[in-house]
Amino acid sequence: MKIALAQINPTVGDLRGNARRIVETARRARAQGADLVIFPELCVTGYPPLDLLENPSFIEAVQRTLDGIARAVPADTGLIVGAPVPNPDRVGKRLYNTALLFENGDLVDSVRKTLLPTYDVFDEYRYFEPARERHVVVWRGRRLGLHICEDMWNNEEYADYHLYEENPVDELAAMGIDLFVNISASPFSLGKHALRNGIVEEICREHGAPFVLVNQVGANTEVIFDGDSRVHAADGTRLLCAPSFEEALLLWDTEVETGPCPLRHDDAADLHDALTLGIWDYFHKTGAFDKVIVSLSGGIDSAVTCALAVDALGPERVRSVTMPSPYSSPGSVEDSLALAENLGIPCPVIPITPAVEAFQKMLEDSFRGTEPGTAEENIQARVRGVTLMALSNKFNYLVLSTGNKSEMSVGYATLYGDMSGGLAVLSDVYKTQVYELALHINERAGRAVIPTSTIMKPPSAELRPGQLDTDALPPYPVLDEILRLYIEERLDLDAIVDATGHAPEFVLRILRMVDRNEYKRRQAPPGLRVSSKAFGLGRRLPIVMRWDREEIRAIAHGAATPENAGS
Amino acid sequence: MKIALAQINPTVGDLRGNARRIVETARRARAQGADLVIFPELCVTGYPPLDLLENPSFIEAVQRTLDGIARAVPADTGLIVGAPVPNPDRVGKRLYNTALLFENGDLVDSVRKTLLPTYDVFDEYRYFEPARERHVVVWRGRRLGLHICEDMWNNEEYADYHLYEENPVDELAAMGIDLFVNISASPFSLGKHALRNGIVEEICREHGAPFVLVNQVGANTEVIFDGDSRVHAADGTRLLCAPSFEEALLLWDTEVETGPCPLRHDDAADLHDALTLGIWDYFHKTGAFDKVIVSLSGGIDSAVTCALAVDALGPERVRSVTMPSPYSSPGSVEDSLALAENLGIPCPVIPITPAVEAFQKMLEDSFRGTEPGTAEENIQARVRGVTLMALSNKFNYLVLSTGNKSEMSVGYATLYGDMSGGLAVLSDVYKTQVYELALHINERAGRAVIPTSTIMKPPSAELRPGQLDTDALPPYPVLDEILRLYIEERLDLDAIVDATGHAPEFVLRILRMVDRNEYKRRQAPPGLRVSSKAFGLGRRLPIVMRWDREEIRAIAHGAATPENAGS
Repeated sequence: MKIALAQINPTVGDLRGNARRIVETARRARAQGADLVIFPELCVTGYPPLDLLENPSFIEAVQRTLDGIARAVPADTGLIVGAPVPNPDRVGKRLYNTALLFENGDLVDSVRKTLLPTYDVFDEYRYFEPARERHVVVWRGRRLGLHICEDMWNNEEYADYHLYEENPVDELAAMGIDLFVNISASPFSLGKHALRNGIVEEICREHGAPFVLVNQVGANTEVIFDGDSRVHAADGTRLLCAPSFEEALLLWDTEVETGPCPLRHDDAADLHDALTLGIWDYFHKTGAFDKVIVSLSGGIDSAVTCALAVDALGPERVRSVTMPSPYSSPGSVEDSLALAENLGIPCPVIPITPAVEAFQKMLEDSFRGTEPGTAEENIQARVRGVTLMALSNKFNYLVLSTGNKSEMSVGYATLYGDMSGGLAVLSDVYKTQVYELALHINERAGRAVIPTSTIMKPPSAELRPGQLDTDALPPYPVLDEILRLYIEERLDLDAIVDATGHAPEFVLRILRMVDRNEYKRRQAPPGLRVSSKAFGLGRRLPIVMRWDREEIRAIAHGAATPENAGS
Repeated sequence: MKIALAQINPTVGDLRGNARRIVETARRARAQGADLVIFPELCVTGYPPLDLLENPSFIEAVQRTLDGIARAVPADTGLIVGAPVPNPDRVGKRLYNTALLFENGDLVDSVRKTLLPTYDVFDEYRYFEPARERHVVVWRGRRLGLHICEDMWNNEEYADYHLYEENPVDELAAMGIDLFVNISASPFSLGKHALRNGIVEEICREHGAPFVLVNQVGANTEVIFDGDSRVHAADGTRLLCAPSFEEALLLWDTEVETGPCPLRHDDAADLHDALTLGIWDYFHKTGAFDKVIVSLSGGIDSAVTCALAVDALGPERVRSVTMPSPYSSPGSVEDSLALAENLGIPCPVIPITPAVEAFQKMLEDSFRGTEPGTAEENIQARVRGVTLMALSNKFNYLVLSTGNKSEMSVGYATLYGDMSGGLAVLSDVYKTQVYELALHINERAGRAVIPTSTIMKPPSAELRPGQLDTDALPPYPVLDEILRLYIEERLDLDAIVDATGHAPEFVLRILRMVDRNEYKRRQAPPGLRVSSKAFGLGRRLPIVMRWDREEIRAIAHGAATPENAGS
């Protein structure tokens, strides 16, 4: 039997475009001899469709689209697609997340998802009822262990949040199967390849059955899917792997020996490819903009953002601008212009002094008798924001904001200033990783696209004379380690102190900065997710809250009770 | 038996403050003779605690806090409180949403929540495992049907999203009970009083048992809880009702005849009280600001926002500013100054022309040969934003943004301009409701606090000469009706056309405006929720999506298939 793995890039809500892509891909697979063509989870709607799923008209249109797909697929070809299907019962969530097997225009069988991820960026129980029962899909004499994404992840070693009671993979194996088939919308994060590989190998070895995994590729708003579709033999060997971060059609002839295929291990390359895919898809799937624009400061964040944009869209679709102030170092404009020249894009210089001075004048009365401080620094950042947005509005540019995850974590950024934009490219990339990306970009280009002086200079916001990031923040390697333990590993004060050996007061200061800046992040543009815990959709914290860790430590250690509280 | 209903206002994460409030209230109730004191759902953590629940240190501190509360409560007094409690099992979500009954320092019994709302602003299945079984709590010979919030709402007539399989209230009644006890964190929306009243009456009448409902009061970021705690007799009669939108301690002597108590029906008053509570709690619970500030345009939205702020915080904590441009009508400054005078707050006038001209000069080269348009209009709005934020940064003011729900729906607002702020007071209030609020505010004050000219003038953004909202938008009564059907009622194109009689093209144009402006709303400040569907937390739509209703209608009507798609 020849099985095609159709790693496609659907667009959320674009039922007709997605259907067209499915039908065309199925025909191409058939032309190559495929008997069965397998598409990703919810490929008809794109993932995540979010509250579109609550719109009855949308769900009705999905069912019509499924009918159309079934009719349009070549005769005698099996087709597995993922779509939301109404729950016929009076009780329960109104939909099932379903894998449907079509052949010759008919629905042959369907399988409902059992394990519904409802954590991090996932909200599946918001929409879907879990399946109550598992069953084997028998097709052309083969017993297929068909299941959906999370259904394979209920494993002590791999579960990030909690275990489920059911284990669909075990249940299916116990029923006797020839082959596991998993259709996924499994997002990328750094290291996810290895994780996915590990669990599939383990399942194959445990149950002695081969495994086909078909994953979505592409970015929908903040969530990036890497693809990484694959076939493993019954002993766990990887037989076929799709390329990551692009569409692919893999054909597996179950009768022909193949593999093993190598596993890619290159974090910098993954990061680069994930982010450029994220930029490409945001730009093309919205279809709302003519070009993108990046404000160049001479620093490394804006340089990397701009270089990624050019890698993603080509220089003809990227514009830049540099907006020096009297506090900009002389090198800043030079470095910005050098970068723009290296990338082959224009970079007008627009000094911000006229507007900054106008605001000083406007605020003279109100500010009289006060010392210059954050208010004045923010005016500079916001004047840049207004200028950039004016260019965006006038010429229909998408503004790519440039703040990294370290800055976004501790609030070292100006709301409505440098945080302005439609898409935050680096908001899930720590400063230390930005450096790795810069080196990778230059290595990939075979030349110093990003000027060496940009990479070497000490980070600075340049909002006052001689300002350095280290005036306000610890060195980035120290900061980033603490942030990663807090945000991705979800450790708290004591555990971070234990892990790093830093003083509790020092760690506490950083955690408080993170907590207190939730209000800024709530108003940040959506950011491309490349870690297991990004800001935005997958990390939901109250703005208004009073969690005082010192009080809580006192309670935990018995030093304080509600009795003596406040005394 | 004397039962106290403790309608308290907890702060999210403030374990020690909440514990203190619980203990003090319990003592006060005991002093009044209470045998049993009942507190709201998750009152120890505040609701919604969101991802704080994923922090093991936080959960550990909650358990210590519960110990402290149990020890501190007066002897021989029953205490029911709500808190997250760890799930001891290896599988399932790691917490239960639990009601705990303490007496004399001991945990007497506890009940886990069965129905976990996971829709709109609720994400309970993100954190909590549902209870598998129900049981009656027997205390001092009484059989209490203790359950938590959503557990009482599984009712065809009242369920907004879907029915559940279990019905805890029915199960408890079947086990034989003397009294229902529901502890809630049930948010306010307009009309919720009547809804809550209706379902409690129905449950009483069906099962012939009295009902005690204790609900949280107060606002935590965007979600506002109205309280509305109550006691109903076995025949459904309301015996006692707590005041809405404030803390209260109600004492019910089960042996004394009382009631009936009236049901308040006043949408404008509810709206006013909900929004002022929302402002008060945001301001005091963050504790981060010295004052609030509102930018007055002379229009009705900023006037109502500012008047609400004064009603909430008093004139000494409210500041305003008015920032005219050459396009501001002469009346705008006068009306702003008149309002500020009526409210007893200062209102400096800061004309924006200097900064607008500076930007024109800075952008002269870039904009050469283009026609003035949105870019230029947005510069004005953003210059106001920068000025307002400068005042905020300098004097530690919380900026209250003033956009209403009609504008936020269709994107008739400038990102980083008039959308700037920490809290959006009216973003869940349609323009037509803003007028009702204005009249209510004046009626309440017994004088025209909001100048009549502000109420009477046709709405305008005043970003170009002679501009009126109706240049771009339908009249607000027409617009608001369509928006309400789309957003709150969650109807789509055809159903709205049927309901209103408007032309499909006209309705389609509005729905598209709503859909396309998701990117603006994603970056809006959190807004106070007063309807059943507010933007923000409870309405999650993709920014990147292509849902083309015309294509979908074509698919639905059989005119298009993937076959002929794109041809």
